[in-house]
Amino acid sequence: MNPAAAGEPLRVGVAGLGTVGAGVLALLRGNRETIAARCGRPVEVVAVSARDRRKDRGVSLDGMAWIDDPAALADRDLDAVVEAIGGADGPARALVERALARGIDTVTANKALIAHHGAALAETAEATGAHLGFEAAVAGGIPIVKALREGLAANRLERIYGILNGTCNYMLTDMRETGRGFDAVLAEAQALGYAEADPGFDVDGVDTAHKLAILASLAFGGRIDFESVFVEGIRGVEPADIAYAEELGYRVKLLGVAARGEDGLAQWVYPCMTPRAAPIAAVDGVLNAVVCEGAGVGATVHEGRGAGAGPTASAAVADLVDIARGVRPPAFSVPVAALDRPPAIPIARRVGACYVRLAVVDRPGAIAGIAACLRDRAVSIETLTQRVRGPGGGPGGAVPVVMTTHDVEESAMRAALDSIAALDSVAAPPRLIRIESL
Amino acid sequence: MNPAAAGEPLRVGVAGLGTVGAGVLALLRGNRETIAARCGRPVEVVAVSARDRRKDRGVSLDGMAWIDDPAALADRDLDAVVEAIGGADGPARALVERALARGIDTVTANKALIAHHGAALAETAEATGAHLGFEAAVAGGIPIVKALREGLAANRLERIYGILNGTCNYMLTDMRETGRGFDAVLAEAQALGYAEADPGFDVDGVDTAHKLAILASLAFGGRIDFESVFVEGIRGVEPADIAYAEELGYRVKLLGVAARGEDGLAQWVYPCMTPRAAPIAAVDGVLNAVVCEGAGVGATVHEGRGAGAGPTASAAVADLVDIARGVRPPAFSVPVAALDRPPAIPIARRVGACYVRLAVVDRPGAIAGIAACLRDRAVSIETLTQRVRGPGGGPGGAVPVVMTTHDVEESAMRAALDSIAALDSVAAPPRLIRIESL
Repeated sequence: MNPAAAGEPLRVGVAGLGTVGAGVLALLRGNRETIAARCGRPVEVVAVSARDRRKDRGVSLDGMAWIDDPAALADRDLDAVVEAIGGADGPARALVERALARGIDTVTANKALIAHHGAALAETAEATGAHLGFEAAVAGGIPIVKALREGLAANRLERIYGILNGTCNYMLTDMRETGRGFDAVLAEAQALGYAEADPGFDVDGVDTAHKLAILASLAFGGRIDFESVFVEGIRGVEPADIAYAEELGYRVKLLGVAARGEDGLAQWVYPCMTPRAAPIAAVDGVLNAVVCEGAGVGATVHEGRGAGAGPTASAAVADLVDIARGVRPPAFSVPVAALDRPPAIPIARRVGACYVRLAVVDRPGAIAGIAACLRDRAVSIETLTQRVRGPGGGPGGAVPVVMTTHDVEESAMRAALDSIAALDSVAAPPRLIRIESL
Repeated sequence: MNPAAAGEPLRVGVAGLGTVGAGVLALLRGNRETIAARCGRPVEVVAVSARDRRKDRGVSLDGMAWIDDPAALADRDLDAVVEAIGGADGPARALVERALARGIDTVTANKALIAHHGAALAETAEATGAHLGFEAAVAGGIPIVKALREGLAANRLERIYGILNGTCNYMLTDMRETGRGFDAVLAEAQALGYAEADPGFDVDGVDTAHKLAILASLAFGGRIDFESVFVEGIRGVEPADIAYAEELGYRVKLLGVAARGEDGLAQWVYPCMTPRAAPIAAVDGVLNAVVCEGAGVGATVHEGRGAGAGPTASAAVADLVDIARGVRPPAFSVPVAALDRPPAIPIARRVGACYVRLAVVDRPGAIAGIAACLRDRAVSIETLTQRVRGPGGGPGGAVPVVMTTHDVEESAMRAALDSIAALDSVAAPPRLIRIESL
């Protein structure tokens, strides 16, 4: 071994040996020498815990103690624990709480845990002097937690947004490329292993919301506030909307967007139309990307694989390298007591452009009636196209009418759409997709 | 002040008050509270040094000691020094050497200094326990040094490449968009302040090479080796080549490319054709971008503003935040003694596709003669187009012939081009632009 890596080994316990946990073991073994040189000491997994001892995970567990109860890892003589169990509560939370309370440095890949309990866990860590690392909880192999907490720490950021869920991005990309609908694309994504049997966590935007809440806390210095995140998933996105988006020069992406304003913090997750020239519009398939915007630094874009054994293990082991090197900045960039609690800016207060698709019965006065509803709420139309035929029409021979608006407050837009929906000439509920200026 | 930021102030000296130095002062003042909260202590500039005391730099120097000799900053009672003078030697080097030798943590934005003397400076820092930070030396506001040294530290990277010079990228973008030639675009870039009066450092690729050598050392763990970088700038890129690149589905970019092979380290800077679908092909204007590729993590893309007061100050102050927090990993990720010295892989050993443009006198057998030269060196043609007219022809009514090859070793390609250049039917020296598979 390189003499530079001859320090005392970092003794690590790993809980959960699924994709992430097994990936951590494989990476620590495969890059053993490189990692030891960079840490100045070897990193050794000395104990593991998982549900089934006999399962073949493709990695050797030789020389590692097997612990049945993951929380009991916190009672071992360890320098660090890696939590790769998952879930906001249950054994994952029990282990992390206990390890931090005992002063053991802890690394987790668990976005639900951090989104729900991150601030409390960081408080425990501060009390005992333990380090809490969660690079692996957000955007896989992209070192975005470190970028926000350290690399961009000189800036007051104004907005941060990203594609944070590879499953949704894969599905939206597939819908665009094949013209198929949500259900067909979901079934294929499930068959390929890109979507879970229970896909709600991904397609309903919850996973994106977890990650957004974590990024927003790091970027803006507020106590993590998952409960306030507005969440709209991608189930309502139809092929017609994706096709019209392309015609209009946009691309439909599920974004998490967080911005700090004078009167609070916006944390919104929704499918939206992004200008096709924006860097994030080109991020396709299972890739993730995060854009950070600040007055001085401008926009920085961070892109890479957001999930999978390799990228997630890369992030978790980077946290171990930090620990082994003695690099231990505050988990949320400032001590938890210094995090503020900005009020949430509700989605009704969003100001931005919108895309609206209506199914209109083609008769005299139909458009005039719609235009009147918009005028009454001071919604200004940017483009309006009535199609003779095409995707997105409705029952009774209704034809699609596609509009984009200038910037409008969401509450006014919603009120106008309620009036429009009540018109006799409108044959189906209006479809709204927000347009994001990036 | 936030009680979390009530620690002892970090006392900083800043040498050089040009764009970068004045930017550091402005950022430390503008984001004073935020930075103090993140550091757990205030960051205070207590001494400065620059050439002209009376010059108005738009930032107040109140309360800061003025030191005429920058190297004398190292003799003050300081916790950290920021070197923003520039130049590989002279006062910048004198200051950094003296500060590190005295154990003062040092931050520099100086890529020439680090590319030439980085390993020696890091050795001095190790000897005294000082920290050496150079985030600001590469790619401005993109925290790529930290990403390589820490965020991606678990990986053995295989290749790293990037657009590292905003001036060249601005010029190539402008040439593509306007069809104008190098000289016209350079004159405009100089008028706009995007290029220096003496542009050689930028357009001849030296600046890119400095940054590439730094990134390669961080990525691959070799002692920094600027002397071995192959450098070709953009003076030879003609509008005809940019136009043909677009037709062929490529975009011309000045890239720095570094890759670690079994038999050494490749460090090459050249203008090349990148597939238009590659993320880096969309990086236009003054933006920079770096792509890191490793087996486990896949490709991560890091993009942002590469120069200017705001982005560069963001990077330099991030290094100060690290210092104030006690975050002090080894400057080059491992101790200098653990860096190896891989042999350089010469450009003649590059294997890759090529674009070639010839000016051919249109007569029987002309193409056959060219094809024979290629065959004799086992260069396999992928596409060949003889144009009746168009940009890039030559004297005597010569017409342009544009070819792309399959992968070929550079030495064979060069030999074939030498034979081709000697043909009577070829009216001008062949133009070669490498095609990079990304």
